[in-house]
Amino acid sequence: MTAAEQATANIGVVGLAVMGSNLARNLASREGNTVAIYNRSYSKTETLLTEHPEAGFVPASTYEEFAASLSTPRTAIIMVQAGKGTDAVIDALTEAFEPGDIIVDGGNALFTDTIRREKAVRETGINFVGAGISGGEEGALLGPSIMPGGSAEAWQTLGPILKSIAAIAEGEPCVTHVGTDGAGHFVKMIHNGIEYADMQLIAEAYDLIRQGTGATPAEIADIFAEWNKGELESYLIEITAEVLRQVDAKTDKPLVDVILDQAGSKGTGVWTVQTALDLGVPVSGIAEAVFARAVSSKPAQRAASSALPGPSEIPVVADKAAFIEDVRQAVYASKIIAYSQGFDAIVAGAEEYNWDIKKGEIAKIWRGGCIIRARFLNRITEAYAENPGLVALVAAPYFTEAIGGTQDSWRRVVGDAAAAGIPTPAFSSSLAYYDSLRAPRLPAALVQGQRDFFGAHTYKRVDMDGTFHTLWSGDRTEIEATDSH
Amino acid sequence: MTAAEQATANIGVVGLAVMGSNLARNLASREGNTVAIYNRSYSKTETLLTEHPEAGFVPASTYEEFAASLSTPRTAIIMVQAGKGTDAVIDALTEAFEPGDIIVDGGNALFTDTIRREKAVRETGINFVGAGISGGEEGALLGPSIMPGGSAEAWQTLGPILKSIAAIAEGEPCVTHVGTDGAGHFVKMIHNGIEYADMQLIAEAYDLIRQGTGATPAEIADIFAEWNKGELESYLIEITAEVLRQVDAKTDKPLVDVILDQAGSKGTGVWTVQTALDLGVPVSGIAEAVFARAVSSKPAQRAASSALPGPSEIPVVADKAAFIEDVRQAVYASKIIAYSQGFDAIVAGAEEYNWDIKKGEIAKIWRGGCIIRARFLNRITEAYAENPGLVALVAAPYFTEAIGGTQDSWRRVVGDAAAAGIPTPAFSSSLAYYDSLRAPRLPAALVQGQRDFFGAHTYKRVDMDGTFHTLWSGDRTEIEATDSH
Repeated sequence: MTAAEQATANIGVVGLAVMGSNLARNLASREGNTVAIYNRSYSKTETLLTEHPEAGFVPASTYEEFAASLSTPRTAIIMVQAGKGTDAVIDALTEAFEPGDIIVDGGNALFTDTIRREKAVRETGINFVGAGISGGEEGALLGPSIMPGGSAEAWQTLGPILKSIAAIAEGEPCVTHVGTDGAGHFVKMIHNGIEYADMQLIAEAYDLIRQGTGATPAEIADIFAEWNKGELESYLIEITAEVLRQVDAKTDKPLVDVILDQAGSKGTGVWTVQTALDLGVPVSGIAEAVFARAVSSKPAQRAASSALPGPSEIPVVADKAAFIEDVRQAVYASKIIAYSQGFDAIVAGAEEYNWDIKKGEIAKIWRGGCIIRARFLNRITEAYAENPGLVALVAAPYFTEAIGGTQDSWRRVVGDAAAAGIPTPAFSSSLAYYDSLRAPRLPAALVQGQRDFFGAHTYKRVDMDGTFHTLWSGDRTEIEATDSH
Repeated sequence: MTAAEQATANIGVVGLAVMGSNLARNLASREGNTVAIYNRSYSKTETLLTEHPEAGFVPASTYEEFAASLSTPRTAIIMVQAGKGTDAVIDALTEAFEPGDIIVDGGNALFTDTIRREKAVRETGINFVGAGISGGEEGALLGPSIMPGGSAEAWQTLGPILKSIAAIAEGEPCVTHVGTDGAGHFVKMIHNGIEYADMQLIAEAYDLIRQGTGATPAEIADIFAEWNKGELESYLIEITAEVLRQVDAKTDKPLVDVILDQAGSKGTGVWTVQTALDLGVPVSGIAEAVFARAVSSKPAQRAASSALPGPSEIPVVADKAAFIEDVRQAVYASKIIAYSQGFDAIVAGAEEYNWDIKKGEIAKIWRGGCIIRARFLNRITEAYAENPGLVALVAAPYFTEAIGGTQDSWRRVVGDAAAAGIPTPAFSSSLAYYDSLRAPRLPAALVQGQRDFFGAHTYKRVDMDGTFHTLWSGDRTEIEATDSH
C-alpha cells in the first residue's frame, strides 16, 4: 500500500493502558471517526483489537506506521503516565509528524511542563495541545470533561473531535478551548485540587455523623442519597452513598470499615497548593485536604500518637436530625469556599501566564463528565455571567446569600467537632478563611508591627501614603522609610 | 605592598547593606579578628569605614584586592540579597579565591540553590557553605543564631569564627554544623516557617482577646508581658508586648491601629510549605499562617467581601480572665504543634537529602539570637536527647502531658472563635491536626473508597496484605489488584 492508501484514520491514540483504551473506544464509537492506535508494546494493541473488533481500529507497530495511517493534518492524543515517558513519546511523534499536525497530551502533566513542551514543539511547525481530561476510566469511555489548551489554530481541527467524545451537560459538550499553551492542564490541576477539598469535606461529614450520632455506614449512605436530591447534588455525593452501602463479602462488614484508612494521592493536589502559593492565592481548603491525606499516611506517627489525650468530656448530640442538617450546611458552605479559592487560583494563573480564561465556561464544562460535576456549577456560571469581573466568587449575591443561610450551622459544626475531638480541618479552615475575608480589621497589622520590630520590614499606615519604620531600638519615633530599606 | 603583606584579615564580608555591615562589625568586635570588607559600590564601604573606625576594617575596591587582603585559607561571608546577585558574587569570588578557601553564603538562599552551588564550587576545590543566619539586624550585630551547612572540612576553619560571633544561650554559642551542602539553609527555612506560625498564633490571640474582652492594646501588652514570665517566654511574645504598647505620635492612637492590616512576606514561608508538600509532611499550622498573610493582602477581595454576613448572635465572654487563660493555653498547644510539624519537616528533609541532622542540636542553637528563641526549646532538646528516634515531637512524654493540660481550653477557644466569627485559622488547624494524629480511625478510608470507585486507584485492607479493587461498575465483587493497575 502507498502512504495515501494507508491514511484511513482521522485521529490516533498513543498509549493503551485503561484510560487510553477507553478514550480510543469512545472516539471509535462516534460517527465519522476512524481511530489509529499505537502502544510501545504491541501486545496491548493486539488485546484491544481482539477485544473490540467493533471499533475498527487501525493498528500500528511503529510511529512511522502510525503517522502513515493518519490523514492530514494528523491528530494524535497521547495517553501515557505523566513524566519523562511523555517527553519520549512527544519526541517520537514530532519526528514522525509534519508541520500543521497536532499532538495532544491527554495526561495529567504539570502545566509548566506543558508550557515548555508547547514552546519546543511549536518550533517544528507542529501544534502541541495539553488537554486535561477528567472523568476517570468511565468518563474516558462514555464522555469525559475535557480542558484543552494550545493554539486557536489547533482548536479549529481538534474542537469538533473533542466535542464528539465529551460528556454532554444540559445539551452542551463539556469541552472548551481554555486558553493557550498550558492553560488546559492548569485548569485541570485546579479541578483536581477542588476535588481533593470536596472529598475531604464529604469525609469529614461522614466522620462527624458516624461519631456524633452512631449511624451505621448504610444509614449514612441513605443520608448522602437524600443530600444528593438537593443543592449538594453531585457525582461525589452520589458515589459516596454507593461506597458506604457496600458490604465486604469476606467479613460481612461495611467495606469502609475494612479499607485501610491511609489515603494516597497522585500529585495534582500538591501541585495545586504549591502553584497557588507561588501565585499568592490562599487555597486553605485544598491544602488542608492534601495535608489530611498526608497525616493519614503516617502509620508510625499515628501509632506513636495514639496515647495523646482527647477531650475530658465528649458532648452528646441531643437532636440528631438537627445535627445532621448542620453538617449538611457545613459541607455546602465549605464547598462554596473551596470553589471560590479554586477560581481565585484560576484568575491569578490566567493573569500570570496571559491566558484569556472564561471562568463561566470552566464551570460549564465541569458540569458533566468530570469528578467534581455538580448541580452547583450552574450557579458559578451564572455568577460570572452576571459579573465577569467578580473578584471573589463568595461575594456574588447568590453565594453570599447561600453562605449566609448556612453559617450558623457551620459555626456550630466547627465548635462541636472541636469539643468532641473529631478532626475537621477543611470545615474549620474554610470557616476561618470566610471570617478572614469579611473581617473589617485583621491582626495582620500586629504581624506587620512585629516584622518592623525585628527585621525593619517597614509598614504602611491606614491614614497616609508612604512606607514607615519605627526606630524600635532607638528613640521609638517613626521615620518615613525609603523603598530600598 | 606584596600580597603577603596585604594579607592582614582572617575573615571577609561581601555586601555591606544593614545585615552585612552589622555582621562585619560583630566580627570585628571579637578578639583576634581582622575583617576585610567589600561592596559592589565603594561608597557603602567608605561609609562603614568612616562610621566605624574602631572596627579596623580592611577595605577592598575589587575582588582581587579583597582576596589579597585575606590570609589563607581565605574565608568570606556573602551578605547580599538572595537570588541572581548571589550567583554573580560567588562566581567572582570563585575566580579570585584558591582551592582550600571558603565561601559562605549568609543570605536566605533556597536550599536547593545552595545544593547546586555547593556542587559547582566544590569542583574548583573551594569550599562553599550555605549558612542560615537569624536574628535580624540586631542579631547580626550582637549575636545571631547561625545554621551552617557545607563540608566538615570547612567547618574546621569556620566553626571557631562563627562561634565567636554567635549568640550565647546558657553558656553555649548558638551555632552548630547542621549537615552537608544545603542542610543549613534548609533548617533556616524551616525556622522561618515556624516563625510564621508563631507570629500568626500570637496575632490570633491578640485578636481574640481584643474582640472578646474589649481590652485595649496597652492592656493586652500587659497580658503578653505576663505570659512572657511563664512557659510561653520568648522573643516574639516579648516584642509583641512592645509593639502593642507603642503609641503613634501622629494620632495618639495605639500604633497597631494605624498600621495597615496587610501582612507582607519574603518567601521563606512559602518555600517551607512547598518543600513540606514535596516531602509529604503536613505543616498545616505554617500553611495557614502563610495563607493568613495572603488573605490580608487582598484589599479588593476583602472590600468586595465586607458585606458577607457574620454570626446571627455573637456570644458574650462571661469570665474574661478565664477566657484569656484559655487563649494562652491555645497558643501553647498550637505552638507545640507548629514545632512538631517543623521538626517533622526537618526529619523528612534529612532523610531525603542524606543529612545527618541532630534535632536536639537544632533546638539548642535556636535558643538564642534567632527570632523564634524561646524557653520552650530546652524541652525539645530534652525530648530528642531522651529519644533520638522520636517519630513525633508531640508524642514525647513532656509534650503529651503539656498538650493534655491545655486541650480543654484549646477546644473552647476554637469553638468560641467560630461562634463569634473571629478568624483563628492557625488555632483551629493545629487542633484538627492534633485530633487527626491521635484518631484511631480516620475517614481517609472513605476517601480511598471514593478513589477506588471513580479512578480504580485500589485500596489496602486492615485485615490482610495485598492491594484490592472493587468492580464498582461491574458486579461489585472485590478483586486483588496487580501493582501495575
